[in-house]
Amino acid sequence: MKKLLIANRGEIAVRIIRAAKEMGIATVAVTSEADRDSNAARYADEAVVIGPAPAGLSYLNHDAVLAAAAQTDADAVHPGYGFLSENAAFARKVQEAGLIWVGPNPDSIDLMGDKARARRAAIEAGVPVLAGTDGVLDVSGDIEALADEIGYPLVVKASAGGGGRGIRRINSREEVRGTVEVAQAEALAAFNSSDVYFERFVTHARHVEVQVFGDGESWVHLGDRDCSMQRRQQKVIEEAPAPGLPDDLREQMRQTSVELARQTAYTGAGTVEFLYDPARQEIAFIEMNTRLQVEHPISEAITGIDLVREQLRIAAGERLGYTQEDIRLDGHAFEFRINAEDPDNNFMPSPGLIETLDLSGGPGVRADFGFSAGQTVVPFYDSLLGKLVVWDTDRERALARAARALDETLIEGIKSTVPLMRRLIALEEFRSASHHTTTIESASGL
Amino acid sequence: MKKLLIANRGEIAVRIIRAAKEMGIATVAVTSEADRDSNAARYADEAVVIGPAPAGLSYLNHDAVLAAAAQTDADAVHPGYGFLSENAAFARKVQEAGLIWVGPNPDSIDLMGDKARARRAAIEAGVPVLAGTDGVLDVSGDIEALADEIGYPLVVKASAGGGGRGIRRINSREEVRGTVEVAQAEALAAFNSSDVYFERFVTHARHVEVQVFGDGESWVHLGDRDCSMQRRQQKVIEEAPAPGLPDDLREQMRQTSVELARQTAYTGAGTVEFLYDPARQEIAFIEMNTRLQVEHPISEAITGIDLVREQLRIAAGERLGYTQEDIRLDGHAFEFRINAEDPDNNFMPSPGLIETLDLSGGPGVRADFGFSAGQTVVPFYDSLLGKLVVWDTDRERALARAARALDETLIEGIKSTVPLMRRLIALEEFRSASHHTTTIESASGL
Repeated sequence: MKKLLIANRGEIAVRIIRAAKEMGIATVAVTSEADRDSNAARYADEAVVIGPAPAGLSYLNHDAVLAAAAQTDADAVHPGYGFLSENAAFARKVQEAGLIWVGPNPDSIDLMGDKARARRAAIEAGVPVLAGTDGVLDVSGDIEALADEIGYPLVVKASAGGGGRGIRRINSREEVRGTVEVAQAEALAAFNSSDVYFERFVTHARHVEVQVFGDGESWVHLGDRDCSMQRRQQKVIEEAPAPGLPDDLREQMRQTSVELARQTAYTGAGTVEFLYDPARQEIAFIEMNTRLQVEHPISEAITGIDLVREQLRIAAGERLGYTQEDIRLDGHAFEFRINAEDPDNNFMPSPGLIETLDLSGGPGVRADFGFSAGQTVVPFYDSLLGKLVVWDTDRERALARAARALDETLIEGIKSTVPLMRRLIALEEFRSASHHTTTIESASGL
Repeated sequence: MKKLLIANRGEIAVRIIRAAKEMGIATVAVTSEADRDSNAARYADEAVVIGPAPAGLSYLNHDAVLAAAAQTDADAVHPGYGFLSENAAFARKVQEAGLIWVGPNPDSIDLMGDKARARRAAIEAGVPVLAGTDGVLDVSGDIEALADEIGYPLVVKASAGGGGRGIRRINSREEVRGTVEVAQAEALAAFNSSDVYFERFVTHARHVEVQVFGDGESWVHLGDRDCSMQRRQQKVIEEAPAPGLPDDLREQMRQTSVELARQTAYTGAGTVEFLYDPARQEIAFIEMNTRLQVEHPISEAITGIDLVREQLRIAAGERLGYTQEDIRLDGHAFEFRINAEDPDNNFMPSPGLIETLDLSGGPGVRADFGFSAGQTVVPFYDSLLGKLVVWDTDRERALARAARALDETLIEGIKSTVPLMRRLIALEEFRSASHHTTTIESASGL
């Protein structure tokens, strides 16, 4: 791999450029017109403007990205997360153009992108799944009987959905038919497929996940993470390892995740997501994300392994070079997603000039930001400014360090979620690790 | 320990405040009038202005510091490094005022502050020492014969000196008497004692050191460091572990350093400094520093142990709680001292307004700075702005990461040593770890 094109923006583009630079790989940033002065453009060896905002006209434009690769003689493409990262058609186009796709085989993306097929693959690998329909719901059949069998409440989900989108809750037998029809129509509009399926709804669930990694011949896990601190199904704070999981479930989750990667001949970085039901003491497969996660730094913090470097190494044809026994999981890490939003005004996006960006430092503190002071946050994209990552030897110390680091973080000119983060880490439910995916929504006085 | 007064300024004051905050200990910053808007003052719970610049009228004023402690009801004092950190008289005054001194017993400071006594203690502990006089030089005796025995070149050092001060080189028998007399006069003027001693001069020496730590009952080392990249005997770049040391010497250095701490019943953090002579493959004791070192973060990076937290724990009467076997040394770390100086203009100090301070981030990068953008560097103190610390799994990767992090670091408004650091890490002698303490002075084109 000689020259890597990064088909993304913001903090993740910076993150990938950093890894490539350290490996001696030249970098090409593609940017929208709105992002031409971004840190990605500044840090990369070359920057190509590929179109205007919004993303559909630039970052999501297959032809524009591929033309930039051809123009700059890049030989590899890293999609980051979001945008084109889980687009198998684009991945195939990259490969057909003779370029290295930094991600799994496009067939893996297809498989895991189809929630019903993914569920079957999980079952075959021994991954526990939620009670639900094994495959696409046959709406011509007796779907009320199926729903009765799973039990209420349950959810109907779009097979092609993901990331919390295309999900509706069904509370009773009377709602089954109507909600399924609405869900089908929504799925068709959003994902171009009306396929849906049923799944048990877990109250007070926790979102846990396993980072897996493989080279096509051997596979390892890099421990687990908890991402239960969510707002509107978007992760807000993540931590590694997942706190308070029973040992046997943690081990089962890790081993079966590696098995799923092995059985699907997965290459590169992937994340197997689970629901953990503390009441029933059960874990169940949600989906597998076939890309780098936003929250990958907390796994890096507890393993000392640079996941983007590993992605680039494996994509370039290198072998893993270590086994599960070589990986040591050490300490505890948190990630805080710092968004340009006003938490005191219904999370209104807060674009504008960043007058001050005074980030924390010192031991165990890592800042992954896509912006510097003096730059402007444009209103066309998600509002992630960057991520504050803290590590310490145990969860309690890491929480104290997080409080210290958040106190030091000073962002002026725009509103940010830093004040919210300070309030969230003070929540007793979070401190005692008895939080769940609706803790933020049900907390008062935030 | 309820409330800690930090008798220092700049990045080390910030560093100590961070550790105390994470432990739930309230903090008092004492500042000069010139430093009243510093980050130490901003981050501490309380700040007390104790006098004007220069340091003699504030940071070095025992009574002013102790008065601030009394006024704020502080129950402990951390001296940082420099200033009062190795002043046994001040340490005793702190203890006599009923306060906790965060440092070793003042008797340890006295012992190691007297270079001749320290050398004897080292010999007793089995620490290899340089050929030289075992104790203060008796100038009424045949000092030419003594010098002949040690061999030329040799150095005459002030017994009360340290940190590279009070040292003169003697190249031949003819220079002995005259140089000793000059050295005695200088020692009397600088350290209020004319005691001096002889030591072999090593050409192309490397400066290596061992971080030791103890609670008065048990002692450990936290690995070694190399600080050979020096300019005018001031450390510029440090790394851990020391590269290219023969295994047996490294082990001897670590074990005898712990033994020296044990035999002197040392408490807290200390550093045993050695010369390494690559030509003779020998190590030899230089001195023991009875305080936290500037370069402590690289030991934190390879051990995961927060040294300031450990200092505070032990000072508060806690036990170590772990043994040497529990300490894992992992990976490789560098520290770059970023000074407000102009490396292209004879290292002229460059005080003034910091317009931009855009620090690096991402995996393995830690910034310990005493300043933020918009603040002013005053001309009254040493010119250290802060330290950039990088860690990676091995030296080569850590060097690549350092290059990336230094490239990203942008300081505007004042001159800094960042451009020099970029040139230093490109030196073949440094990259191959065949550098020594005069590499920087002898390198051309810097």
